[in-house]
Amino acid sequence: MDDRELLNVVMRIVGKENCLDDCAEVSCGDQVMVVTTDMLHRTTDFVEGMTTWQMGWMSAAVTLSDIASMGAEPKYLLIAVGLDVWQDLAGVMQGAKDCCKKFGAVIIGGDIDRHGELTVVTTGLGLVDKTLIVRRSGAQPGDLVCITGIPGKAQAYLDGYLQYKEALFEPQPRVKEGQLIARRGVSAMMDDSDGIALSLYDLLSVNECGFSLDSTKLPVPSGIPAVHARELALYGGGDYELIFTLPPRCHPVNGVAYTVIGTVIKEKVVLLDGLPVEKRGYQHRWE
Amino acid sequence: MDDRELLNVVMRIVGKENCLDDCAEVSCGDQVMVVTTDMLHRTTDFVEGMTTWQMGWMSAAVTLSDIASMGAEPKYLLIAVGLDVWQDLAGVMQGAKDCCKKFGAVIIGGDIDRHGELTVVTTGLGLVDKTLIVRRSGAQPGDLVCITGIPGKAQAYLDGYLQYKEALFEPQPRVKEGQLIARRGVSAMMDDSDGIALSLYDLLSVNECGFSLDSTKLPVPSGIPAVHARELALYGGGDYELIFTLPPRCHPVNGVAYTVIGTVIKEKVVLLDGLPVEKRGYQHRWE
Repeated sequence: MDDRELLNVVMRIVGKENCLDDCAEVSCGDQVMVVTTDMLHRTTDFVEGMTTWQMGWMSAAVTLSDIASMGAEPKYLLIAVGLDVWQDLAGVMQGAKDCCKKFGAVIIGGDIDRHGELTVVTTGLGLVDKTLIVRRSGAQPGDLVCITGIPGKAQAYLDGYLQYKEALFEPQPRVKEGQLIARRGVSAMMDDSDGIALSLYDLLSVNECGFSLDSTKLPVPSGIPAVHARELALYGGGDYELIFTLPPRCHPVNGVAYTVIGTVIKEKVVLLDGLPVEKRGYQHRWE
Repeated sequence: MDDRELLNVVMRIVGKENCLDDCAEVSCGDQVMVVTTDMLHRTTDFVEGMTTWQMGWMSAAVTLSDIASMGAEPKYLLIAVGLDVWQDLAGVMQGAKDCCKKFGAVIIGGDIDRHGELTVVTTGLGLVDKTLIVRRSGAQPGDLVCITGIPGKAQAYLDGYLQYKEALFEPQPRVKEGQLIARRGVSAMMDDSDGIALSLYDLLSVNECGFSLDSTKLPVPSGIPAVHARELALYGGGDYELIFTLPPRCHPVNGVAYTVIGTVIKEKVVLLDGLPVEKRGYQHRWE
């Protein structure tokens, strides 16, 4: 059982329409408030060697990234912290606050709990004009498939390329980029936190089209043998880049560092150089 | 170190103004959106014998109670579930959904995580007119101190009075009551989830006045020796009644079952029959 299979359990209970995007949407005057929540904890998400400040930073960053992927402006964060050791709290809170400050949000509430394992759940709220909101659905054949930055760096650190520590320990949500891409007319977007391959399969599940990538265009982390670097870029988790589909007329998006890595195709498949991409990446698993 | 001491650590980092009430407030058109988050998990919050459905119900109920205590109408819930056993998910989700449905909210988002211990974090969003929002501050000398329902039942179950199982296992947030009390002109309100005594000390910390209770007026669970029953009502946790201060001109509030248990006084103290009330109740503790 993996988390995408479990999501089907949730869909049956709460309705598929509440499970489709990186954020939920709530009407808020003339705007849409987007809302998202993420659970992180020590054994799974907080890598050996991270400071509590970095754990707090990461906890905020993953949630701000979901807001960015809707084209929204992050505004508020709530943070629930389960602590085995109370001394961890100040570092976690300061890290979360500093990340929020850098990306324009403020911490407005939370909860403190005693827990057997350090567990941090962040809930983020953002605002976006109704006309500018971006969802996972909306891709059209002929659109360009694009990714910000260089995917695969976070997994590269876990595979021993220690120069990529910062990518994993202090992820930078693409907040400014998400808003610029939204204003330019993107057709679909999400973040690639579970890897490009799984993200494209997530997009596949809510679009009536597919995606064809060109391996020669795929940006990969430098200083790593080519085959491994491509593996990292396609299947590595822990990145917070934006993967999006762009009508050709909207390309380029000024002010955003991104790469066109393929095109949207009519067939409902995910291809790399014409061959099916494996459906794997970062997933939780249960026996 | 207890959680109220730890809250001071949080206040120093995120600002005292973001730590004062049961919910945070966000402007939303002509209304205020109130937002709150709560972490519950198996070893601390989910009592032996609870079904997963009840765990989901409780997780939603505690958050809807915070929304009720602001006088707001619950609208949306997000739920992050950390699972050691994936089979627990459906029960938790169904329980949370049923609680939301009963009290007018819908589940719009969430997260699924693999975790060493079943951990549920609910984030609730509610709406209230700007003029009707109720906070913990606002009590004035001469106001009546009131409580809905019968406090102490949840703790009574834990102390062996098994007839009170439902009070602990399936708490009923006072959603309708909170809105009626708000419309009638309440001056301050919160829920009593950590017990009446601690709640009054929480109110004390944000009001320039104190509270004097009359033990003969305190409603207590029936079928329990008087001294123990009063102990439960004052210091027991796990209830989700509303404790509020009401200008005498606003009494009674039609349609709400509540009891006047004392008055707001000028002195910054919490008294029962003229003697200081102990500052204890449900608290998390760390060594």
